[in-house]
Amino acid sequence: MSFDRLIEKIAEKQNPTVAGLDPKLGYIPQFIKEESFAKYGKTLEGAADALLTFNKGLIDALCDIVPAVKPQCAYYEMYGWYGFKALTETIAYAKSKGMFVITDGKRNDIGTTMEAYAKAHLGKTEIEDICEEAIGGDSLTVNGYLGTDGIKPLLGICRELDKGIFVLVKTSNPSSGELQNLEFKDGETVYQRMGMMCEEWGKELPGKYGYSGVGAVVGATYPEMLTELRASLKHTFFLVPGYGAQGGGAKDCEGAFDENGIGAVVNSSRGIMCAWQKAENADEHDYAKYAREEAIRMRDDLRKVIGEMRLK
Amino acid sequence: MSFDRLIEKIAEKQNPTVAGLDPKLGYIPQFIKEESFAKYGKTLEGAADALLTFNKGLIDALCDIVPAVKPQCAYYEMYGWYGFKALTETIAYAKSKGMFVITDGKRNDIGTTMEAYAKAHLGKTEIEDICEEAIGGDSLTVNGYLGTDGIKPLLGICRELDKGIFVLVKTSNPSSGELQNLEFKDGETVYQRMGMMCEEWGKELPGKYGYSGVGAVVGATYPEMLTELRASLKHTFFLVPGYGAQGGGAKDCEGAFDENGIGAVVNSSRGIMCAWQKAENADEHDYAKYAREEAIRMRDDLRKVIGEMRLK
Repeated sequence: MSFDRLIEKIAEKQNPTVAGLDPKLGYIPQFIKEESFAKYGKTLEGAADALLTFNKGLIDALCDIVPAVKPQCAYYEMYGWYGFKALTETIAYAKSKGMFVITDGKRNDIGTTMEAYAKAHLGKTEIEDICEEAIGGDSLTVNGYLGTDGIKPLLGICRELDKGIFVLVKTSNPSSGELQNLEFKDGETVYQRMGMMCEEWGKELPGKYGYSGVGAVVGATYPEMLTELRASLKHTFFLVPGYGAQGGGAKDCEGAFDENGIGAVVNSSRGIMCAWQKAENADEHDYAKYAREEAIRMRDDLRKVIGEMRLK
Repeated sequence: MSFDRLIEKIAEKQNPTVAGLDPKLGYIPQFIKEESFAKYGKTLEGAADALLTFNKGLIDALCDIVPAVKPQCAYYEMYGWYGFKALTETIAYAKSKGMFVITDGKRNDIGTTMEAYAKAHLGKTEIEDICEEAIGGDSLTVNGYLGTDGIKPLLGICRELDKGIFVLVKTSNPSSGELQNLEFKDGETVYQRMGMMCEEWGKELPGKYGYSGVGAVVGATYPEMLTELRASLKHTFFLVPGYGAQGGGAKDCEGAFDENGIGAVVNSSRGIMCAWQKAENADEHDYAKYAREEAIRMRDDLRKVIGEMRLK
């Protein structure tokens, strides 16, 4: 009903990293693609098979040191329903290896439709008297533009099945301020208001380490806002994109953490996935080894700034 | 590169309706479900098969009088990748019957990730030197909370492949005002600002009937705002949810249309899909006939208010 499970995994591994699994074909070694295309042709099916194989290699190499993965739905939907199958199988595989799964879908809708998303991504689907897990993530990113009607349908399922959500608050992209930074009459900005709504929604899902099951997405590319939001949103756990390829460093993430070194999970996607492409004279067969090395570098980079992660 | 194709279909059929395809199992006649469960068991696969059969029956009954369908992704994702397959097959079937497809996914992200959604839902996916259509809709609903970075990646594909997007502006739900109605310092509201951004983004995709390829979602449940936004957003075509089950009537939709009876498409989901459940002593085998009758009733209801739909 909160992010306790994620926080415990972070403390156990002393690593507040989530590895983004956004497997574009261009990031995948040739030998994997050739094998998949030999089986299924250069088709959506062949591509989806390649990304599942790539992901499994990454998960095997990361699961003992990285607490969580974040598959980004867009990169799977790109390959149609074959891609969606690969997403589902990636999630199942990561969970079987003990990792916490954040499905990055930024879903949003209202009422019974949002309930359908909640069942799809976090809960179970009824088929008459049978119940089946459709996708099976541990948490889901969502967009709160529609207000409480878009969030409430998630909270019951989070409480019942010990899941969580991350609401977009201040995103990492250059144009995020176009709407999010605008000030209301009382001086509050859109992102501050969204943050306060997270605190409010989170009251229904309290956690034992002080953080609720309603988290917020806040980009590392706006470090002052990260610090400001950490101070004002005491019960809101942060998912921090923007480290690495988007330009944020460990120092930029510091403000996301509390005095116990807890409070956020920092995402790296391309940095980890594409480490083999950046290494000199790398053998593509070693892509997972390079991913692991980069994950260790990132963990140590963050640790230097955050210090020990202590459970209260 | 705009909504010209949709507008032409609306004028041809003199019907500004889009039929929402949100096929919950509870809406589907028993005989369809029994047949699917006999084939695939009470499984995600069996359920997905039932909803595809249900949809095809609806499309067959509606395609000569209703210009467009709007499948809502959530109700397909609920059945996992089997559901996503049924979504893709529903879209292909509707297109084969000449209908315009609005995929209701409310997708949102930035940069290359939004580009992946654009390719997935509107464009084509490259698999090395091969190009395949992954999902294949004519337009997609999107959420603009992330600003221009979340919209730009769609515009190139819309221009190239003659597709369009609908951005959430003022949604139909009771709590939509929590954020959307808040006023900035200059008195402009969040939804007005989002609407003006649609006008701005739409400049890249002009259409021959005055409406661009960047539309807006504006609920029938807020008729004054619909009228106000029609007046201020001259080039923005509207997708209007909230008719029927959510409480809006034809009169509430009137403000969405211009002096030529053009400017919007009005959605009905449950009203059409579940017409057979509301009819007295209905034979469930006739579900499609009842859907057609309701679609005709709704068309005539809207026509009374809007009058003739004239292409300039």
